[in-house]
Amino acid sequence: MTNSKLRFRPALSKMKAYVPGEQPQGGKFIKLNTNENPYPPAPAVVEAIRAAADSRLERYPDPVGSSFRRMAAQRLGLPGPEWILCGNGSDEILTILVRGFLSDGDLLRMPTPSYILYRTLAEIQGARCEEISFNADWTLPAAFSSPDGDPRLTLLPNPNSPSGTVLSPQAVAEIAAPLPCPLVVDEAYGDFAEENCIDLVKQHENILVTRTLSKSYSLAGLRFGFLVAQPHVITELTKIKDSYNCDAIAIAAATAAIAASDWQTENRAKILATRERAKGKLRELGFDVLDSAANFLWCTHPDRALKPIYESLKENQVLVRYMDYAGWGDGLRITIGTDAQIDAALVVLARLLQSDA
Amino acid sequence: MTNSKLRFRPALSKMKAYVPGEQPQGGKFIKLNTNENPYPPAPAVVEAIRAAADSRLERYPDPVGSSFRRMAAQRLGLPGPEWILCGNGSDEILTILVRGFLSDGDLLRMPTPSYILYRTLAEIQGARCEEISFNADWTLPAAFSSPDGDPRLTLLPNPNSPSGTVLSPQAVAEIAAPLPCPLVVDEAYGDFAEENCIDLVKQHENILVTRTLSKSYSLAGLRFGFLVAQPHVITELTKIKDSYNCDAIAIAAATAAIAASDWQTENRAKILATRERAKGKLRELGFDVLDSAANFLWCTHPDRALKPIYESLKENQVLVRYMDYAGWGDGLRITIGTDAQIDAALVVLARLLQSDA
Repeated sequence: MTNSKLRFRPALSKMKAYVPGEQPQGGKFIKLNTNENPYPPAPAVVEAIRAAADSRLERYPDPVGSSFRRMAAQRLGLPGPEWILCGNGSDEILTILVRGFLSDGDLLRMPTPSYILYRTLAEIQGARCEEISFNADWTLPAAFSSPDGDPRLTLLPNPNSPSGTVLSPQAVAEIAAPLPCPLVVDEAYGDFAEENCIDLVKQHENILVTRTLSKSYSLAGLRFGFLVAQPHVITELTKIKDSYNCDAIAIAAATAAIAASDWQTENRAKILATRERAKGKLRELGFDVLDSAANFLWCTHPDRALKPIYESLKENQVLVRYMDYAGWGDGLRITIGTDAQIDAALVVLARLLQSDA
Repeated sequence: MTNSKLRFRPALSKMKAYVPGEQPQGGKFIKLNTNENPYPPAPAVVEAIRAAADSRLERYPDPVGSSFRRMAAQRLGLPGPEWILCGNGSDEILTILVRGFLSDGDLLRMPTPSYILYRTLAEIQGARCEEISFNADWTLPAAFSSPDGDPRLTLLPNPNSPSGTVLSPQAVAEIAAPLPCPLVVDEAYGDFAEENCIDLVKQHENILVTRTLSKSYSLAGLRFGFLVAQPHVITELTKIKDSYNCDAIAIAAATAAIAASDWQTENRAKILATRERAKGKLRELGFDVLDSAANFLWCTHPDRALKPIYESLKENQVLVRYMDYAGWGDGLRITIGTDAQIDAALVVLARLLQSDA
């Protein structure tokens, strides 16, 4: 800034913007790079949006999304709606948590390799970020649970991205116990796993769970996520959110989505079947592929460079996510699409590996 | 908090939550308390929402709302889309500005009586808030433009709420010149005024304008607002927003709304006619009513207590906003509804003033 009238916060001037996965607005890409669900949302969701379009949009929405909170509490077996905070995507929930617990210079703890947005959120807030490396078997070392350094907030994606690995609720409870701060279990991919940490929230004041409707409910375009925490935590964090953070259409659609659990269950089953089939094929092609509890696979290769594979895939209209983590190396994170999308990607991959062999 | 594991930021623990105007979810209130538009959004907006409901909501939306930015830049006579930042309501834009410019202990300046949310936003951020009182004629004293105290951000609603008064672009430019910080002109009600400050943004790097579609475009339920600022300011502030802060449906609807300017112009004309008629009638009833450049009227009374009037109106299913400002006293802010709504409210008011005389 040349003009001293525009004095942005120093934390902001120093940082780089977070870059989400590519979202090409045109073209005919097979898009396997941002873990979207390949199936559309439930017909009841589309109906709810149509009804909401005619329902007095000139009025402000319910500030706390009561209809969603009631339905979600029922579906998740929570004592009541006061255990839920609605957000404009779980990104907003994460932002609210960072703004709730971290002052300038405070410590945020997170694992690595993991969701790189967390570091950006800490930087925006002016907080410090401590990245604790996963063990080779994707468990976490004791340092992750240690009070050393006085972390004020700990974020743990579970299932994790990019690995797709998951820690059991028991392991999560053991991590939370020695921590001097809230442990936020980011369950963006929780619906694809066999177990989750919702029940832990009832027993542990410092275990908080975030969820999104973007992945398992096929609603990335809608922006709706939520936090599950004990009611006094919800009350305090509600102070931070904008008065009307979720719009009337999103609230109606999200309520319909979480009510339509059969649709979600069926799509989940299809995705898990495709995932297991893709895993086998990728291993046949020579990739090292981790077992996944999410809707994507993390692929490395013992002797092939991965960035050229990512680039060649892109030239062939197949978008996957190439990621490179300091101390861990790189890999390809491949979202599970439809069978047809995955088959098409596998054909291109086989050809690429063949031709360069 | 009894448990030391939940150490909320001190700024947060001290503050009280902002309380927006009542939004009764049931009942048959004539709702004249939160400055909503009494008319529905344009038919093209409802059509755009219906189309968006069928358009791959399983995919992430355009992160920056390109279609809206292009259309809004054209409608507002701006050089290009890079002069616009889309937000989840202008509330989010204000939050982004506060997070962009104010560190712990920094000074936010605002006028009073004015939009009380600003103080809450400063408190959440841990910033200090300096309220400069309007002059008796609703102009601002020199202190508002002074570099004294080193303000890092100044917020000015124009037209102002609750007064409905407006400063000319020339007066705004004169306020901005000596300020050592950005002057954000909050034009939530700008579409109801005869002039606005959009053109000033092109000449003055430290003049920023916020807008919302909630009021003049009848879309309070949708949550869409935007910032107009020079492109390098937009770029820096974009770092702060969540990656996908506006959903696909809101972007489509907002684009259709700002394109359908005839609908907005017609509703505006109706509201202004009703406003002028209501002003005359309220003055006949003995109220002191300010001339308004917005979609509401600020009413005081030389010898009647206003809180009981507010309460009696509410008992009669008419909701207006009762506000009380230290050093200024109280008043009723009455949103301009339809003619029928305003007539019904005037009948109740006349009866109340009569019966208690």
